[in-house]
Amino acid sequence: MSNNRKAKRAASGVNPFADRLAAFAAKVEGRGLDAAVVFGQSNIRCLTGVDCDNAYLLVGGGKVVFYTDFRYSPAVRRTAPWLKVDDIKKLNGKRPLRLGSMKLEKIGYESSITCARLQTLKKVFPKARFTDILGDVTDLRAVKTQGEVAAIRAAVKLNDEIWAKAMAAFRPGMTERDMARVIKHMMIDLGEGEAFETIVCVGRNAAECHHVPDDTVWNGREPVLVDMGVRLGGYCSDMTRNIVPERPSPLYKKVYALVLEANRRAIAAAKPGMTAGDLDKVARSFLERNGFGKAFGHSLGHGVGVDIHEKPAAAKGSKTKLEPGMTVTIEPGVYLEGNLGVRIEDLVVITEDGCEVLSASGK
Amino acid sequence: MSNNRKAKRAASGVNPFADRLAAFAAKVEGRGLDAAVVFGQSNIRCLTGVDCDNAYLLVGGGKVVFYTDFRYSPAVRRTAPWLKVDDIKKLNGKRPLRLGSMKLEKIGYESSITCARLQTLKKVFPKARFTDILGDVTDLRAVKTQGEVAAIRAAVKLNDEIWAKAMAAFRPGMTERDMARVIKHMMIDLGEGEAFETIVCVGRNAAECHHVPDDTVWNGREPVLVDMGVRLGGYCSDMTRNIVPERPSPLYKKVYALVLEANRRAIAAAKPGMTAGDLDKVARSFLERNGFGKAFGHSLGHGVGVDIHEKPAAAKGSKTKLEPGMTVTIEPGVYLEGNLGVRIEDLVVITEDGCEVLSASGK
Repeated sequence: MSNNRKAKRAASGVNPFADRLAAFAAKVEGRGLDAAVVFGQSNIRCLTGVDCDNAYLLVGGGKVVFYTDFRYSPAVRRTAPWLKVDDIKKLNGKRPLRLGSMKLEKIGYESSITCARLQTLKKVFPKARFTDILGDVTDLRAVKTQGEVAAIRAAVKLNDEIWAKAMAAFRPGMTERDMARVIKHMMIDLGEGEAFETIVCVGRNAAECHHVPDDTVWNGREPVLVDMGVRLGGYCSDMTRNIVPERPSPLYKKVYALVLEANRRAIAAAKPGMTAGDLDKVARSFLERNGFGKAFGHSLGHGVGVDIHEKPAAAKGSKTKLEPGMTVTIEPGVYLEGNLGVRIEDLVVITEDGCEVLSASGK
Repeated sequence: MSNNRKAKRAASGVNPFADRLAAFAAKVEGRGLDAAVVFGQSNIRCLTGVDCDNAYLLVGGGKVVFYTDFRYSPAVRRTAPWLKVDDIKKLNGKRPLRLGSMKLEKIGYESSITCARLQTLKKVFPKARFTDILGDVTDLRAVKTQGEVAAIRAAVKLNDEIWAKAMAAFRPGMTERDMARVIKHMMIDLGEGEAFETIVCVGRNAAECHHVPDDTVWNGREPVLVDMGVRLGGYCSDMTRNIVPERPSPLYKKVYALVLEANRRAIAAAKPGMTAGDLDKVARSFLERNGFGKAFGHSLGHGVGVDIHEKPAAAKGSKTKLEPGMTVTIEPGVYLEGNLGVRIEDLVVITEDGCEVLSASGK
């Protein structure tokens, strides 16, 4: 969509996710359901553009109703005039809800809601049968709109800037926690804070893929692994880089070169039509052939959007077909216990004939 | 428990929450259940002292088993030698789990888990009937151990220090976001970050009780409401203070004095044996008598611990009896739309004969 058309749409108050919402409604209908109830904050946001922590969306029979409370309804009416807004108090189990004259007997729900919430739903729709439709909305979210790609691109650009500034600020004698704080402060000042807890691993700590920054001091001669993501405009970035010492050990040097090559091969291979499992395989089989298959103990990557982990999962055996507009991290890693760890992670977006690497930091 | 005994316990590797875990096991047995499965990270932490984001706890038949994955099990074995640790992969639905020779047919679960997780549990225990036991563990967590009160006291003290420094750093011309950032930075440097998104409201923005800091500029003559909590040692603090301008409007002055009096009356009244609903009533009826009952649109308070919102809920009609060791916020507020908002919030701990106010910041 041209910027001109985008501006017109925004001005006329059209849901920027109208196409996704329509596709979702069609899936609900295609399953033979009367309606679906959506509670997930990110799911609601990605179907309506509205970010609200006390809301649910009822979609069915050609209608969409956004239920929220008195604190939020004025703002929702103002920012999303295309939405019919109603009072969330109606979801109290005291009287059955209807959509127009339609009886709601076959209802879609997200299996990500709590059991307590499903119990409440069963009171609101006492005669209904419930079907899990979480996958329908998360599948649709995997393919980003142009506006979403622009937002993610901006978050990735900020991530690159923060990484450059952080490297300039790191000094020997700092602890992992100190270095993580340098990044956290910049993310608060320049963005909307961390997309996830920043990971900083000095030396052999990088061998644990879920290491939490501690008081380990960096002597300036050890490698440092940093996995960081910033939130901007509600969207996330995700990147891993390593500070390679001037004189790395021969093993570190070898592993670094192999992980980088695995990252490059996966980037070169990523294109629409291939499965996410085959993309994982490109990096995995390369590391296996070089004797480090077992040391690559996690998946190649995941989608990134409003949430830091979205579909597709670029994991062994995943049958999801890559499509233009999907984002996916390419993050092969090699972890040798008690010795070293290297992970190199870029965020890419699938294009018509390959992929575009959004992350621009040197590697 | 004396410090000496505490030190001995820690040295000998005894669960600091052994009494709570035993009480929980007794509740599970008292309900006629074979076992309970606990997934909630805060719940597991408050039953075992172990903080782990991929674990579940099986409690029943006099046994306790902590299931986690290979990334965490070495650390759990080291820090909690009293726990039997097993592989979380056993929770895969491929074979039924047992506790010793016991068949597990009546199982307690937390209704706070997702529906998807309950589906998995039903595969692991295919013949079991499930009973919600969330309330059993959250009831027990409401009464803090001495160690927990000490941790919360430290978090509250840090909160007081940060508030003093923040007030000294605030300057006219700053936006709400700027002021929130001042606090966020200090919480990262001095604690473990925010316990919740810091709220800063300039002038009439304070009339919305869920206002999100925006670009509203403080001119130095308007009141400012700040609701803030820092995490330290894994525990939360929670406090609301107001910067009262040198020359407040007569209405603001009147409202401030009434809210402060409501806060003081509730503090003076809080004691073991009274219900949390009656505590709410002390503040509410005072504000009602003074014509501001409707303007106090939320509950008086809530417990604080590992989570920012715990039991007891000091809300209208709550029948929970206050007990020594419970923490509760005392936070009456008056909100006049488009005009002003005042909330004054202290964190107190119930003692043998009343309560101790932990928050020490001037009000």
